[in-house]
Amino acid sequence: MAKLDGLTYEEVKKEYDAWKAQNLTLNMARGKPGSDQLDLSNELLTILSDPKECKEDGIEARNYGELDGMPSARRLFADILGCRESQVFAAGNASLTLMFDTISRAMTNGMLHSERPWAKEEGLKWLCPAPGYDRHFTITETLGFELITIPMTSEGPDMDAVEECIKDQKVRGMWCVPKYSNPTGIIYSDKVIDRIAHMKPAAKDFLLMWDNAYCVHEFDGDYVEFPDILSLCEAAGNPDMVFEFASTSKVTLPGAGISCFACSEANMAYMKKLLNASVISYDKVNQLRHVKFLKNKENTIAHMKKHAAILKPKFDMVINTLEKEIAPLEIATWEKPKGGYFVAVAAPGLAKRTWELCKEAGVVMTGAGAPYPYGKDPEDSVIRVAPSLPPVEELEKAMQIFCVSLKLAALEKAKG
Amino acid sequence: MAKLDGLTYEEVKKEYDAWKAQNLTLNMARGKPGSDQLDLSNELLTILSDPKECKEDGIEARNYGELDGMPSARRLFADILGCRESQVFAAGNASLTLMFDTISRAMTNGMLHSERPWAKEEGLKWLCPAPGYDRHFTITETLGFELITIPMTSEGPDMDAVEECIKDQKVRGMWCVPKYSNPTGIIYSDKVIDRIAHMKPAAKDFLLMWDNAYCVHEFDGDYVEFPDILSLCEAAGNPDMVFEFASTSKVTLPGAGISCFACSEANMAYMKKLLNASVISYDKVNQLRHVKFLKNKENTIAHMKKHAAILKPKFDMVINTLEKEIAPLEIATWEKPKGGYFVAVAAPGLAKRTWELCKEAGVVMTGAGAPYPYGKDPEDSVIRVAPSLPPVEELEKAMQIFCVSLKLAALEKAKG
Repeated sequence: MAKLDGLTYEEVKKEYDAWKAQNLTLNMARGKPGSDQLDLSNELLTILSDPKECKEDGIEARNYGELDGMPSARRLFADILGCRESQVFAAGNASLTLMFDTISRAMTNGMLHSERPWAKEEGLKWLCPAPGYDRHFTITETLGFELITIPMTSEGPDMDAVEECIKDQKVRGMWCVPKYSNPTGIIYSDKVIDRIAHMKPAAKDFLLMWDNAYCVHEFDGDYVEFPDILSLCEAAGNPDMVFEFASTSKVTLPGAGISCFACSEANMAYMKKLLNASVISYDKVNQLRHVKFLKNKENTIAHMKKHAAILKPKFDMVINTLEKEIAPLEIATWEKPKGGYFVAVAAPGLAKRTWELCKEAGVVMTGAGAPYPYGKDPEDSVIRVAPSLPPVEELEKAMQIFCVSLKLAALEKAKG
Repeated sequence: MAKLDGLTYEEVKKEYDAWKAQNLTLNMARGKPGSDQLDLSNELLTILSDPKECKEDGIEARNYGELDGMPSARRLFADILGCRESQVFAAGNASLTLMFDTISRAMTNGMLHSERPWAKEEGLKWLCPAPGYDRHFTITETLGFELITIPMTSEGPDMDAVEECIKDQKVRGMWCVPKYSNPTGIIYSDKVIDRIAHMKPAAKDFLLMWDNAYCVHEFDGDYVEFPDILSLCEAAGNPDMVFEFASTSKVTLPGAGISCFACSEANMAYMKKLLNASVISYDKVNQLRHVKFLKNKENTIAHMKKHAAILKPKFDMVINTLEKEIAPLEIATWEKPKGGYFVAVAAPGLAKRTWELCKEAGVVMTGAGAPYPYGKDPEDSVIRVAPSLPPVEELEKAMQIFCVSLKLAALEKAKG
């Protein structure tokens, strides 16, 4: 129950209006690294300046060829993800595109174990643990799936719900962000991961989309080991069920990084045959730049400590402000993530109005509802806070405005 | 009729065996630039070394955002292609991928004027002027179209055949490489281009795929002006029929260049909405590198003169060897292109056997049949010669082996 007794509407409104009068323009909308984070990778711009260094294992990175990427880039990702080099396909600057392409190929051609292209079937469905990543949901909505909401818990997707849903052979896949889940920041528990690996979907070509976007993205404390989903699925008799994705977008440069997918060798052979129709090769020069810069998992984790030093004060400010301003009122709850890019504030019945009030006071946030399929939050509850882009002094103001907006929304509602 | 009287099988066989005994490994298979061509763009590796220069028009190239690319990259392509900046979408390193993606989006979602996603229809067909580019045909074959062969003339596709075919509303598109056509090297005539722009296909969502791969790729003589297909289609009342494609793959680095598509503003709005589901942004840092290096059309054409200086001696050697060794025998014909990357040798009834003999003697060429839909050349005639990759001294040997193989194939056939 809300504890608003200590607050008066007039006082909170006055505080809100004072912020509004400042005509600020602040942005907490997307998980964009700040400019000081971009500068951590300045060396990328100069690290590969000698054309003689563009050759590796006899492969000329500047020319056409080598569909699945430079072997050293595949080794780098295999090291980071804990899988085999033969399971890794190194690609261009966007893992999101690889995810779209995987499901799009399933639509036009089918997956390895499909009887026909998915586009030839009607009424296909997709599992969307929510709150989740809006761009994931957009992919499967765009490709024509009915989106099924799966409740998220603090340990991952509600697996009872998942196991029930996958009895329907129309259900063809599920989105997962297993480590520092977008937007709640939780890590899937070993138990949940084990149940995921052991799923027995009715659809033989069920596609587990394992977006390991934040695999080395601790901002608080040391690197947290995380299981390799490919071996777990293999051990569970589901070797071809999973495609894993990762990128350096939040390691080096979001606009100019490299990405990968990882899957069983059987899936790899199938996908390479399909991808050969659309790609001669991805940008191998940029892959080499990244290998020279990041070197291996150990060095990548050391590099991530520099991001952490920039991000931790921002996340601390978000959490501390929420603890101080909102916690006593009991109008909202949140997890305290140690990695990733977001804090998800759950304020039942208040999300839309809080978002509007923030907007009117100059603070842009991801739309309320965005973390749910079709942008519809059934409890009008979750607001995603993305603190990475603004400098600390701006973030402080933005969080003050967010908190006063949330209070005002609660008071408006209490007034009725 | 073949004039083989001056040749004896034994002498030609002896010459062939002598080459074979050298155990050479020579490659004339793909249109890959040679390493001296790659070195023409060494400056690309160092031209953008200051992070401060990664910002332009307020856009930070290193971060997420700007789906359709850096404005300066769009202006560069608009300048080269002769269209408006608002018609250009600047992307990653592969125009082939953009082509696949365009047709794949038509499959899953339909084009601007489609009644439904193409994947919901059966028996769709695609026009393939042949000899043509094998990777084009692979795209539409992979996506499930029936490929219809359109004869190529020295002025472009046989437009009588095209105009007849497009009366069928199942025919949804056509491949074109209008300038220095792959593989014959011819330029579409103004008359053919005008008929193309004025087509009235039964399908309202007919897709003219205009792959302007060799738009500034003269190797012999000055830059040849070429009409802007977008304005021609607009003037003919077909503004939304055409998507044009180009890249810097054979201007800078094949593995690490930039690409674009160009289309009507209405198509652009539609495609951006669709692409927004799969892409946050392409590699804008590499786009900026290219803008700094190529600057504008004039400077790009000047840069292409350096490629020409390397390529012309290679093409001269191909043509001169054919003129000397093959022309008097009248067993094959070829065009003499002034740009592009290929010479297509038409030797009716001899292509497969010539390819085999070349292979046995250590010369790898694109498979006979490849320039035709499904890899089936009805006259077993066309062999694509790609002289760009080997150094001149290797190319000389490769062409000698090619000519003796062709002669031997003709003599074998004459013997019966």
